[in-house]
Amino acid sequence: MSISFSLEQLCNVIDTVKIEGSTTDMLSGIASLDTAKPGDLAFLDNPKYHAQVADCKASAILVPADYKGAGPAENQAHIFVEKPSYTLAHICKQIEATLWQKPPAGTHPSAAIDPSAQVDAGAHIGAFCSIGARAKIAKGAVIASGATIGIAATIGEDSFIESGVRIGAYTQVGARVHVLPNAVIGADGFGFVPVNGVIEKIPQIGNVIIEDDVEIGACTCVDRARFSSTKIGKGTKIDNLVQIGHNCVIGKYCMICGLVGMAGSTTIGDYVTLAGQVGLSGHIKVGNGATIGAQAGVIENVPEGVTLLDAPAIPVNLAKRLVILKLRLPEMWSKIKSIEKQLAEHAK
Amino acid sequence: MSISFSLEQLCNVIDTVKIEGSTTDMLSGIASLDTAKPGDLAFLDNPKYHAQVADCKASAILVPADYKGAGPAENQAHIFVEKPSYTLAHICKQIEATLWQKPPAGTHPSAAIDPSAQVDAGAHIGAFCSIGARAKIAKGAVIASGATIGIAATIGEDSFIESGVRIGAYTQVGARVHVLPNAVIGADGFGFVPVNGVIEKIPQIGNVIIEDDVEIGACTCVDRARFSSTKIGKGTKIDNLVQIGHNCVIGKYCMICGLVGMAGSTTIGDYVTLAGQVGLSGHIKVGNGATIGAQAGVIENVPEGVTLLDAPAIPVNLAKRLVILKLRLPEMWSKIKSIEKQLAEHAK
Amino acid sequence: MSISFSLEQLCNVIDTVKIEGSTTDMLSGIASLDTAKPGDLAFLDNPKYHAQVADCKASAILVPADYKGAGPAENQAHIFVEKPSYTLAHICKQIEATLWQKPPAGTHPSAAIDPSAQVDAGAHIGAFCSIGARAKIAKGAVIASGATIGIAATIGEDSFIESGVRIGAYTQVGARVHVLPNAVIGADGFGFVPVNGVIEKIPQIGNVIIEDDVEIGACTCVDRARFSSTKIGKGTKIDNLVQIGHNCVIGKYCMICGLVGMAGSTTIGDYVTLAGQVGLSGHIKVGNGATIGAQAGVIENVPEGVTLLDAPAIPVNLAKRLVILKLRLPEMWSKIKSIEKQLAEHAK
Repeated sequence: MSISFSLEQLCNVIDTVKIEGSTTDMLSGIASLDTAKPGDLAFLDNPKYHAQVADCKASAILVPADYKGAGPAENQAHIFVEKPSYTLAHICKQIEATLWQKPPAGTHPSAAIDPSAQVDAGAHIGAFCSIGARAKIAKGAVIASGATIGIAATIGEDSFIESGVRIGAYTQVGARVHVLPNAVIGADGFGFVPVNGVIEKIPQIGNVIIEDDVEIGACTCVDRARFSSTKIGKGTKIDNLVQIGHNCVIGKYCMICGLVGMAGSTTIGDYVTLAGQVGLSGHIKVGNGATIGAQAGVIENVPEGVTLLDAPAIPVNLAKRLVILKLRLPEMWSKIKSIEKQLAEHAK
Repeated sequence: MSISFSLEQLCNVIDTVKIEGSTTDMLSGIASLDTAKPGDLAFLDNPKYHAQVADCKASAILVPADYKGAGPAENQAHIFVEKPSYTLAHICKQIEATLWQKPPAGTHPSAAIDPSAQVDAGAHIGAFCSIGARAKIAKGAVIASGATIGIAATIGEDSFIESGVRIGAYTQVGARVHVLPNAVIGADGFGFVPVNGVIEKIPQIGNVIIEDDVEIGACTCVDRARFSSTKIGKGTKIDNLVQIGHNCVIGKYCMICGLVGMAGSTTIGDYVTLAGQVGLSGHIKVGNGATIGAQAGVIENVPEGVTLLDAPAIPVNLAKRLVILKLRLPEMWSKIKSIEKQLAEHAK
Repeated sequence: MSISFSLEQLCNVIDTVKIEGSTTDMLSGIASLDTAKPGDLAFLDNPKYHAQVADCKASAILVPADYKGAGPAENQAHIFVEKPSYTLAHICKQIEATLWQKPPAGTHPSAAIDPSAQVDAGAHIGAFCSIGARAKIAKGAVIASGATIGIAATIGEDSFIESGVRIGAYTQVGARVHVLPNAVIGADGFGFVPVNGVIEKIPQIGNVIIEDDVEIGACTCVDRARFSSTKIGKGTKIDNLVQIGHNCVIGKYCMICGLVGMAGSTTIGDYVTLAGQVGLSGHIKVGNGATIGAQAGVIENVPEGVTLLDAPAIPVNLAKRLVILKLRLPEMWSKIKSIEKQLAEHAK
């Protein structure tokens, strides 16, 4: 990060309740209370870190309006705000907008754009991009260097397609969608049928539809449907290295963590959370609001709102009880042996 | 999809037994019986969906020659064919050939091709491709935009290397091989040895050999051998995000699903199925025709033809029995406690 | 591989104790004792393969100085050396340097380099590379074709960034770092917060710091920090398809195998080994020298030096004992039933 701002510049862009102490340091980093150095801005949000304020080396610390504790050290400011986490997010957004500026509208001269593609004048097309025939790129969209947009694919307003992303033919990407580097959307589904000792490909003639405000992680793969569409619902966020099989339908505002694998034709409701490395069989349904814990294996339909763990996945409370009992297997074994011995003694 | 055909056009390209009813709708989609709308073609293949025909909204339905059930609705055709699934596959192949046309032979002017590379006049080389020294690209091969072909690598006839694929130096790719976007074939194997507190690299001087008719998924990685070759046998299909370690040898007509990881020097026979997220240790052998269930961990040799589950992997019937018994652990625990109590009572 | 050398050429570059037999074959491959063909160089390193020397078809075999066993066959040489594995590594390094030559310094005319970027005259920039504003590429670094270097990112001396790699803005890469094809370093961390039924992005304004001598595998993703830095320590080696979350800090000389997933803010000490498909929760610490077995799930802090297995992860000896007892669950169940029967009989 190459940011630098004075205490005064900082306080000009946030709502402060009051300020105690002061600093002449320029602020050039953000850090937690325990790791901050002079020149950093730190923050107290979770009350359990209250005691760390006293020893914090930051030049400035965001504290809650009702903070009562150690006062500022020499050349250190305590900035009292209503909600430090919101203030911090606000500051971070300003820094992000400065450091990761949206590239300007326009097309790099090296880009290979099919004459039949429609690129809005307000879109940015980076170096070495390939834009296929009849593709449409809307206003404000950014196609970063080396990305590929397939035939007749559409990219909605203000969407950000990062470097090396491959958007397959006929894919429909909504507005404000963010696809991270090297993700692959709309490649062939994995559909085969064994015929007389060889494996024949089942044609995959559907597409992928990604609704507004979706984020798709780096190297994540979303396969196109056998026919009709693989769908990712509005506002859903998908982490890196996730596999979404053909014909999956994912609802709105789901969170899907890294290395999750979802086999074909599985349906996920709204507000579902899948933790890291979860696997889901094909052709099952996960109800709205369900949560699946890390590394779980889901092989049948999941009701709404439940939290599951383990493989095969079971309710979290049962899973936790079974973990405890599994650890007591040696004790169970010796109890059984002891009982058998008592009975044998008794039978004599 | 932007396809559209009339009932008459459809019936001209398939073998029909008879047609009942008719439709004036243009057909522009394919859907299952329960989701089809007017304008769709639906199909009855699995008898268990027989009852769905009556309420199906599709404009045309493929039904088996011996279908007896609800007749066609208003403006709906029932098309009787010998085997609806075959007819559907035939129709899909025709649609695929229309919508995903093979690009014509020729080289995009932007491609960077080493003068010593041999590119057949019947091959297609897309924009921003890099073709290394002494590489050979055969007739009918398609190297899509932004792909990289390493030094002395060979790509066989009619193979399709998609956008962003990296084919490492000395890799040999057979005929009709399909490599999906952003896959990496022939990168360095993960071979290291700890020496005096640091980790030294073991040179990886082998290559990768991919036989005919293989499919390799998006973002899948096949590492080159330490020496000799990592091999993928004829007709094997590998899904997305799979890791194949150095010196692995995979037989013919295997199916390897998403997120599988295979450590180095493991050998897989012919007709092996590895379900999603399976992990295999290095230096083991999996016999012909074996099936490994999802998320299983294989740490020793697997005999021919068996089906394994769980980690460490065990025969599927045993695994299923153990799952049931695991769920009865609370019952086992309380039975043991109850027995102990009875014995204690008795001992008084 | 297209290498070829005579027995004499080989012996000129290695230290031999003595040579028995001879061969007129040119050597053009390296293979294990049991798979070697004429024209290959084989080697006896592990004593358990001693008996394979007698039937080995290689034209030359490296054997230990104290080897006593079957003599060389017709047209075959036995080359006695102090330590065959070291000699082999030495030979492989020479072959590697020949077959995978470092590309010469210079910039391909197609590369898109921002005028404010500083590219050392001794660096290599391949075709279709994008180098962002204020980026710095040091002497001896190689940026292979189609790679992207973000704004203000730095690449250290002699580092090798392979094709299709995406190095995000502000990333700092040390010296002699090797990043394999299509890896993504410095993309957005997966940080979100649910607010009133939608999911809001938490800005990710940190970066990634990669110390010297690190290797990062193909399609591996290392996310940039929310603020401050995600760090990979000196000499650590990461395999393919690994997910490193934002704000993770990894120590020196770790080995991280394929398909490992590490959630955000987790800290790993030095000399830690994570086997394939391991998952780690966020915000935990793994002590120096710990080893986590394949597919394990780590959900709490791990002490120094321990070896863990299973999910949730437990000490390896306990895990192995529990595996054995799990396999005896059917026996435990029938013992309990038998005891209950005896007690019931007794109660009559």
